[in-house]
Amino acid sequence: MSWIVQENGFDRRRITANGNKFMIGNGYMGYRGTLEEFGRAELTAVTLAGLYDRAGDQWREPINAPNGMFTQIYCRGELLSLLASEGEPLEHIQELDIRHAVHRRRTVYRMPGSADGGQVTVSMERFCSAKRLHLLAGRVSVQCSEDCELLIRTGIDGDVWDINGPHLAGLAGADAEGSLLLTGRTQELQVPVAVAEAWAWASAGETIAGGWRAIEAAVGAAGEMPAEMNELPLPWKTETKVGADFVFREIRLRCKAGETYTFHKFTAVFTGLDEGGDAGEAALKYSREAAALGYEALLKEHAESWERKWERSDVVIHGDGEAQAALRYSLYQLHIISPGHSEKLSIPARGLSGQVYKGAVFWDTEMFMLPFYLHTQPEIARNLLMYRVHTLDGARRKAAEYGYEGAFYAWESQETGDDACTLFNVNDVFTGRPMRTYFRDKQVHISADVAYGIWQYYLFTGDGSLLLEGGAEVAWECARFYYSYAYFNPGKQRYEILDVTGPDEYHERVHNNAFTNAMVKKCLSIALEAMAYLQEKQPWQYEALLSGSTVKPEQLREMHDRLYVPQPAADSRLIEQFDRYYMLEDLPLAELQSRMLNPHEYLGGGNGLATTTQILKQADVVLLLHLFSEGYDRDTKRANWEYYEPRTEHGSSLSSCIYALVAADIGIPDWAYPYFMRTATIDLTGDSKQYVGDLYIGGTHPAANGGAWMAAVLGFAGLRFDGGTVRFRPSLPGEWQGVEFPLCLRNQSFRIQVAPSKVTVQAHADNVRGLQFQWGEQIGFAGPGETVSFTCESTSLS
Amino acid sequence: MSWIVQENGFDRRRITANGNKFMIGNGYMGYRGTLEEFGRAELTAVTLAGLYDRAGDQWREPINAPNGMFTQIYCRGELLSLLASEGEPLEHIQELDIRHAVHRRRTVYRMPGSADGGQVTVSMERFCSAKRLHLLAGRVSVQCSEDCELLIRTGIDGDVWDINGPHLAGLAGADAEGSLLLTGRTQELQVPVAVAEAWAWASAGETIAGGWRAIEAAVGAAGEMPAEMNELPLPWKTETKVGADFVFREIRLRCKAGETYTFHKFTAVFTGLDEGGDAGEAALKYSREAAALGYEALLKEHAESWERKWERSDVVIHGDGEAQAALRYSLYQLHIISPGHSEKLSIPARGLSGQVYKGAVFWDTEMFMLPFYLHTQPEIARNLLMYRVHTLDGARRKAAEYGYEGAFYAWESQETGDDACTLFNVNDVFTGRPMRTYFRDKQVHISADVAYGIWQYYLFTGDGSLLLEGGAEVAWECARFYYSYAYFNPGKQRYEILDVTGPDEYHERVHNNAFTNAMVKKCLSIALEAMAYLQEKQPWQYEALLSGSTVKPEQLREMHDRLYVPQPAADSRLIEQFDRYYMLEDLPLAELQSRMLNPHEYLGGGNGLATTTQILKQADVVLLLHLFSEGYDRDTKRANWEYYEPRTEHGSSLSSCIYALVAADIGIPDWAYPYFMRTATIDLTGDSKQYVGDLYIGGTHPAANGGAWMAAVLGFAGLRFDGGTVRFRPSLPGEWQGVEFPLCLRNQSFRIQVAPSKVTVQAHADNVRGLQFQWGEQIGFAGPGETVSFTCESTSLS
Repeated sequence: MSWIVQENGFDRRRITANGNKFMIGNGYMGYRGTLEEFGRAELTAVTLAGLYDRAGDQWREPINAPNGMFTQIYCRGELLSLLASEGEPLEHIQELDIRHAVHRRRTVYRMPGSADGGQVTVSMERFCSAKRLHLLAGRVSVQCSEDCELLIRTGIDGDVWDINGPHLAGLAGADAEGSLLLTGRTQELQVPVAVAEAWAWASAGETIAGGWRAIEAAVGAAGEMPAEMNELPLPWKTETKVGADFVFREIRLRCKAGETYTFHKFTAVFTGLDEGGDAGEAALKYSREAAALGYEALLKEHAESWERKWERSDVVIHGDGEAQAALRYSLYQLHIISPGHSEKLSIPARGLSGQVYKGAVFWDTEMFMLPFYLHTQPEIARNLLMYRVHTLDGARRKAAEYGYEGAFYAWESQETGDDACTLFNVNDVFTGRPMRTYFRDKQVHISADVAYGIWQYYLFTGDGSLLLEGGAEVAWECARFYYSYAYFNPGKQRYEILDVTGPDEYHERVHNNAFTNAMVKKCLSIALEAMAYLQEKQPWQYEALLSGSTVKPEQLREMHDRLYVPQPAADSRLIEQFDRYYMLEDLPLAELQSRMLNPHEYLGGGNGLATTTQILKQADVVLLLHLFSEGYDRDTKRANWEYYEPRTEHGSSLSSCIYALVAADIGIPDWAYPYFMRTATIDLTGDSKQYVGDLYIGGTHPAANGGAWMAAVLGFAGLRFDGGTVRFRPSLPGEWQGVEFPLCLRNQSFRIQVAPSKVTVQAHADNVRGLQFQWGEQIGFAGPGETVSFTCESTSLS
Repeated sequence: MSWIVQENGFDRRRITANGNKFMIGNGYMGYRGTLEEFGRAELTAVTLAGLYDRAGDQWREPINAPNGMFTQIYCRGELLSLLASEGEPLEHIQELDIRHAVHRRRTVYRMPGSADGGQVTVSMERFCSAKRLHLLAGRVSVQCSEDCELLIRTGIDGDVWDINGPHLAGLAGADAEGSLLLTGRTQELQVPVAVAEAWAWASAGETIAGGWRAIEAAVGAAGEMPAEMNELPLPWKTETKVGADFVFREIRLRCKAGETYTFHKFTAVFTGLDEGGDAGEAALKYSREAAALGYEALLKEHAESWERKWERSDVVIHGDGEAQAALRYSLYQLHIISPGHSEKLSIPARGLSGQVYKGAVFWDTEMFMLPFYLHTQPEIARNLLMYRVHTLDGARRKAAEYGYEGAFYAWESQETGDDACTLFNVNDVFTGRPMRTYFRDKQVHISADVAYGIWQYYLFTGDGSLLLEGGAEVAWECARFYYSYAYFNPGKQRYEILDVTGPDEYHERVHNNAFTNAMVKKCLSIALEAMAYLQEKQPWQYEALLSGSTVKPEQLREMHDRLYVPQPAADSRLIEQFDRYYMLEDLPLAELQSRMLNPHEYLGGGNGLATTTQILKQADVVLLLHLFSEGYDRDTKRANWEYYEPRTEHGSSLSSCIYALVAADIGIPDWAYPYFMRTATIDLTGDSKQYVGDLYIGGTHPAANGGAWMAAVLGFAGLRFDGGTVRFRPSLPGEWQGVEFPLCLRNQSFRIQVAPSKVTVQAHADNVRGLQFQWGEQIGFAGPGETVSFTCESTSLS
């Protein structure tokens, strides 16, 4: 049952967590896993990718579209609601079929006014079409154990979650020949947003797919009295209600005991950013076309899309159902937010699960999510990186704002690439005052992360088009930024990178952060290589870039060669996280925590408890050892893992997967496994930090989801691709009998099976080229359709 | 009466402030202006210059010697005490004769057990000999209006003020043939400390000098029954009491109504740092020799010493008695703490008024006190600077500790030059936690301040011996430090000074602080000039310094020429305090203060309210304009004064005098006057900040005292000496008819009179060389014994 995620019973304290856990989406929008009758207070949200708004002087954030799936049911005049303070439902199940990305809920309510324990059973299903990106489709069934009158209120509800809203002005609802339409415009840029809904009784004989019993229905097409309805108890009628921020239809229905009544909703969301003219017209047309195709057909094409996603990405773990379920769920999360349709979108740090973190794109994408796409769906990887090309001007503006050359990418990037990050990001719990943090202005590694991602794409795919269409320019501009940011130390005759915040945000404004310096060095070499590629392929572009720059490639080369990157100490093998890190107080994490006076106090910032200690927020040096694994020997990795691991507070969800990866890399899967599981289950358990002060910061964690994939495939399976050869160094957890997964490298497809003492590579028959694979000293070449196996008596540490 | 500082009546809330206000001292020790019967709780302290101790793991601080002036009087078995909760004294006067540095108090108590309003009058006088540095001498008189029995307890009390004490271990008291002796050893370095007291009845006919009526006395030599005593009511006897931390003599005396009884105390303090063998023996010998000379003779030689101090330094203000009194008092404060006797001492930030700020020497000395000495008593200036030569190794150790070359002088310097400054200097009022501050590690301008002081001495005196005896080496080492601290910006092709804290401590860790960069540039040129001087005079030393250095003078020259110093903007004339200062929130000071949640909250540090705003702690750019006045035109000075003045919180006592100086410099004495008065009265009013949390940080403010002198002479009189010519640009406050003062420049003495339209220079007849003087276009040369006058129709702004 690793394809089904389910919760039984209703716990109002889980509403927010379940909103994340049961989310559906398709990259165009995310629909939180709230129930159909919920509203703003339960954080109901249809979060749209790439459409941001500023209301008043608050920060910019994505807008949540009106909720077209809104449905309430009244029985005998009384609202059937899980939120009512009195009375538990007789039964409540919420589930997500992650194989096909279908959300279902079934609730059995006590029937109001029933003397004999009457029940009303409500079943609802919905999906966010993977095939039709503007479409949310749903099915609603209701059955009563006694004859009764129901009022079903269903339509489009504009009263959805907003952190800094309202974002839609001039909301107007309308009944458009039986379809509903709610339109508005964003406050800041006046972008139209429209949601339309078409509605229809289910045709007879339909069933709800999945684990529940079939539900018979009895009716016909939208808005008309179907002939079959004559057989039903009358009266029934529909009426349209238009309010300030909603448009609903109210369906009055006299139900017969035991009979099931089912209808479908076809909701379309369009904005002014979409092609196709007027958003309202487009939404109406889209929803009607969907209705015309019918629910089952739509569900079928959606499910088929999902089958293809899994074919290209599913990781099968033999021998560990728990890990299997968690990992699949992580991949599900990545799939529902992948911007497969647009190269102007990337993935926000909280995916499409709401407005948290301003819906902004962080380094999370390049460093934690990109590997999954690079290995499985390079066309999505390309979109993610083209987003950086399209936002280059924003990065240039940010660099100029701080007096630098080139491109300083936004720490929190929205549609333009201008930085949405504020200078004050956390409130001091003791004074309530905003606290100055140095994320925006000092976390300079972001530009190198972007360049690194671009180069990885080129290595993994061999596709130089990204470089030619702006990727090389991005790398060049990032390198120019570093050249202007760097300083030369005349006494030590080396370049240094000063005054930065590394991944460990508890230590702001440090000098020579090992990770940052290594990334900058990498960025410089990438820029030089990318520029050489550009010079060869499109010399006129190369010349144009050079002529607009005071910095010459020779200067970047010199900086590259003389840039200081903190190295492992000769004796201890330790890499100091930044200059004078070892001078900081060295104490156990528990002791630090015992000093906390408030459970929500931020450990970093001006006076944070961690800032004067060696306690880190997240993997920093250890991340460096993961990214540049080939450059460091096992002893170095192990020494640093052992040193930094007890000093890491894991205040970031990006931390655990890195500790898992490096533990696997050094051949100690037992150290890695708990970190892998923590990463892979983060959105299932909802155990991560949810609030800072009174601000909700929860949501889904796509970087951790990507980290789970990395830990499994790059960590335990030990796969590394350098653009030429795929190397394995399996290091499977004890329980795992094997792990299987597809790969798409250099545009060739493979299926990989890794067992403790055997690795098998099957090249797809449709491949046009072979690829080299290696395990230890064994090297094999897998041409199209070929299978290559490596065996090993016992796993050894190379 | 500008020579007498007096308070009438007793207010226990003024005890601490008066401890500073009525202080006496002689550079070897400071004796707080507490009353003779006071102890630890009233902050009684005999603070010794240059002897520091660490007790346990607390910070190092100067020790307070046992109080040899301790005296209590019991009448009819009851202690006469101002501290008793019931009953005000009938009269209480405390006064300080600042001309001769004599402290007096007179208290009239209600007589215990008197039915007829009987009174006991106690008068005491004391001075800290300017001639005999180990000596504290005092006179005690008592008179009763009715016959009664008195118990006088007088001796040496070890229960004195300590912040982080106790510092003296193994305290032992003894009666040494009628003299008292209390000895102990410091905790950390086991340095012996001894206080001895000799005692004697006053001889008949002596009077207390000063404003009080003569007091007749009736007795003879110490410990013996004088013949005259036969005429007094008997019995009288003395008894010695030795306790854990005291040794007292108890004198029982049956007093005759109306008769005055007077005795003298001769107290000597010696430590193991003094020459002369055993400290206890030395103290006993010294106190007995003093007793043998007699009180009046000691007082006379002391007063003569003080007359000479004033001859060389007094500034006479015509037309403003209030300013006159405050300025003289400021000079008094400087005189009582001047280390005229030792080149291993400098002046702590709180003088010798206690242990506050660890008794440490800050930049205050070179930048705020040194000018007074340079213009009046260059031999003291030389001592202050030789202290820096003697602590060079400490500065080298600090530089090495942080990975730099050369000499990084201590922010808080004690006897070794190692930095006594901690990384955590202020407690957060909201959490009670120590707050990380960047005084120690980032306030790098201190090394340039030291080099600047050394060079000023050479310019002012023409005496190269300081350079040859280590001064050139200090300058060279400071310059080497900056070379290793600086970075070269390859894009901008300039050297920069990054990550520093300037004088404005509310903004820590800034880049290119204008003041710091200008000082570094000056330090580099000083080092080059000093080294050239050394090369000429003592080439072997020059070669030795060069051979021990990886840095060559050419490199310092190159850095000097290419060092970035923020310049006035072409339009506004404003100099930006540091990189991106203008980007900070710009708000009125009152608005910032209205945000404070706690009156004691520190505005700087991690989350301080000022840190993200343009509000400064103290003059920073404006200090630069004072120091480098010749380099900036009047418009620039005025524009910056007007910009920064309303943004300055004056959280430091070093701030006001600089605003006074620059206001006078630009010819607006009305702007300067309130700042001058604030500076000059700081230790009279005691209005400065006294507590941070529960920590007493008050004491005297020698930097402000020096600043008052600077404001008067360099500011209002407008005197500036560049080593060649003395220039005047008078800018007297409206009330001032003139100001007169002595000068000692290039070892030649002058008397200067400055009136609004006339400046007169009288060269001392004993001078051996002349000096050039200038006012505007007028130039005069004052040879030995000559008088030169300049007149001007009306004061004009040059």
